Amino acid sequence: MIKHIIWKKNSLRVLDQRLLPRRVAYIDCRTAEQVARAIKDMVLRGAPLIGCSAAYGMALAARKRSTTALQAAARVLVASRPTAVNLAHAVDAMFRAAAGTPPQRLPAVLARAAEAYFRSDLDYNRRMGILGARLIRKGSRVITHCNAGALATSGIGTALGVIRESFRQGKIAHVYADETRPYLQGSRLTLWELMGEGIPCTLITDSMAAHLMKVSRIDAVIVGSDRIAANGDVCNKIGTYGLAIAARHHKVPFYAVAPTSTIDPATPDGSRIPIEERSAAEVLEISGIPIAPKGARARHFGFDVTPARLVTAIVTEKGVVRPVNASGIAKILAGMVR
Amino acid sequence: MIKHIIWKKNSLRVLDQRLLPRRVAYIDCRTAEQVARAIKDMVLRGAPLIGCSAAYGMALAARKRSTTALQAAARVLVASRPTAVNLAHAVDAMFRAAAGTPPQRLPAVLARAAEAYFRSDLDYNRRMGILGARLIRKGSRVITHCNAGALATSGIGTALGVIRESFRQGKIAHVYADETRPYLQGSRLTLWELMGEGIPCTLITDSMAAHLMKVSRIDAVIVGSDRIAANGDVCNKIGTYGLAIAARHHKVPFYAVAPTSTIDPATPDGSRIPIEERSAAEVLEISGIPIAPKGARARHFGFDVTPARLVTAIVTEKGVVRPVNASGIAKILAGMVR
Repeated sequence: MIKHIIWKKNSLRVLDQRLLPRRVAYIDCRTAEQVARAIKDMVLRGAPLIGCSAAYGMALAARKRSTTALQAAARVLVASRPTAVNLAHAVDAMFRAAAGTPPQRLPAVLARAAEAYFRSDLDYNRRMGILGARLIRKGSRVITHCNAGALATSGIGTALGVIRESFRQGKIAHVYADETRPYLQGSRLTLWELMGEGIPCTLITDSMAAHLMKVSRIDAVIVGSDRIAANGDVCNKIGTYGLAIAARHHKVPFYAVAPTSTIDPATPDGSRIPIEERSAAEVLEISGIPIAPKGARARHFGFDVTPARLVTAIVTEKGVVRPVNASGIAKILAGMVR
Repeated sequence: MIKHIIWKKNSLRVLDQRLLPRRVAYIDCRTAEQVARAIKDMVLRGAPLIGCSAAYGMALAARKRSTTALQAAARVLVASRPTAVNLAHAVDAMFRAAAGTPPQRLPAVLARAAEAYFRSDLDYNRRMGILGARLIRKGSRVITHCNAGALATSGIGTALGVIRESFRQGKIAHVYADETRPYLQGSRLTLWELMGEGIPCTLITDSMAAHLMKVSRIDAVIVGSDRIAANGDVCNKIGTYGLAIAARHHKVPFYAVAPTSTIDPATPDGSRIPIEERSAAEVLEISGIPIAPKGARARHFGFDVTPARLVTAIVTEKGVVRPVNASGIAKILAGMVR
């Protein structure tokens, strides 16, 4: 599997996912600010992966051997993208590691903590894959949206982790990947991952998913998440909500897969999740080619929220929340579900 | 307004809509086969407009002064795209005009009949605009999908005809145009038409419509149609069905606007409408640039079917069908609704 972030002690080498699948190129980030810029510009993306990168960003800032520098780095990293809560989660983990550490030992301690954070995400991926595969029956044809795969995480992915493990168990007949406008993570990244492992897959435009559910048997929709509220509302890449409505209309189970670091108990429900609005240019152009008249206006919502009632189950590394509601979320966070 | 088809007696000059909004260029079709090729290649599109073009295609074939030539032309024109029933409707109208006409008079008679067919579509557009505007209340914010505008018809358009007339009456506050992957008729054509007339409009990706219905007030969804079955099922550009499900979920009225030539009483319901599958390359590339890995597979459904129960009303030139069901459709076809 291709390496998408490589820790170099004095820098974090980051695969530029914007160029995939056409070109494999890396960017070296030597400071937390450069990591934050790479996240903001979507050089790398995916809630768990940007969490891991923020941890390494803090490790880079630690080389200044000052808590002021760490605090400044934390601010710029958390602000790099407003929706994914994993950034704050990772930064908090780094502060816990830094607590009581003499300044001269900060670089080594935070580098180790960032490595541990990365490794735990890797382990969570594996566990979610195994727990999620239990929900998938043999011969399943599934739809996924955006890229919640290896490129979005430290390991096998969240949604794609479940698909990979289910495929390994002989349960996946076919994967349909939404192209995921405007950034085309589905066509550029998900297809690339699935084809690389010989998992049978077909690209569709986002607008074809509902039709496909009607004319073809679809057994499950499996997606990742950028933030899950305390009541189980699932925030994910724009288009997920419409897909969930279509799934419910066709009685197709809708699964969200995310580590508990994606759950934000401080956000009571989805209406309180800040939805990033990105540049209109990203909708008005494709690969730099204008697709709309000069002077056209566009909205570019980066995410949407799928209410808990449309989510059949949430798969975390600690267990499966089902039914999805506030008490189920509270139990998972308390480690009360297995 | 730009001319999109120009009858030249010996040829039909056709605006190449694939190049809009970047370039205005025309293609001259001298035979029915060339018209059919232009329709197949989407040089021009939109159910009413390809109907008009097929009529002119028959007029070009009539220059051979033989019914055999007309029959051959009809076959190739009707086969150029399988979903829109307007092609067959137009060809039938030309055969009616040809009936009993001496061969030497066929060119003049069919040219006149094609002009009349075009003019009647123009008139229908105006009537649908007026009837449809009655359904729209002041200050409306509407979503439209694909391009059902001047570029898709002879006149002001079907869905966009209603939007234009409603705007003229001061009822439209804002239009959100789905970009409409994979052909981007929304971003390339609809925005171009709306901006040209100063109608406030914003582009969204198809995947943003459901989110917009949740976070913003949307008063109506207005679309065209490529074929309406006898029971009121509405076939239209891929993505319409998902949009209709989302509209129902949010209790937003969903209107289809189409001349009665789009209604096919011989098709009992939507499951019998042939859904054109086009080249996967049109999904795997944008403007010739690959957006997926080499060797990737894709499906490209050109259309989908929205069941009658999700359609609030169908606006035709003869009146409004509401509720949408077999008896309403039968009454409209019998001219029993005003």
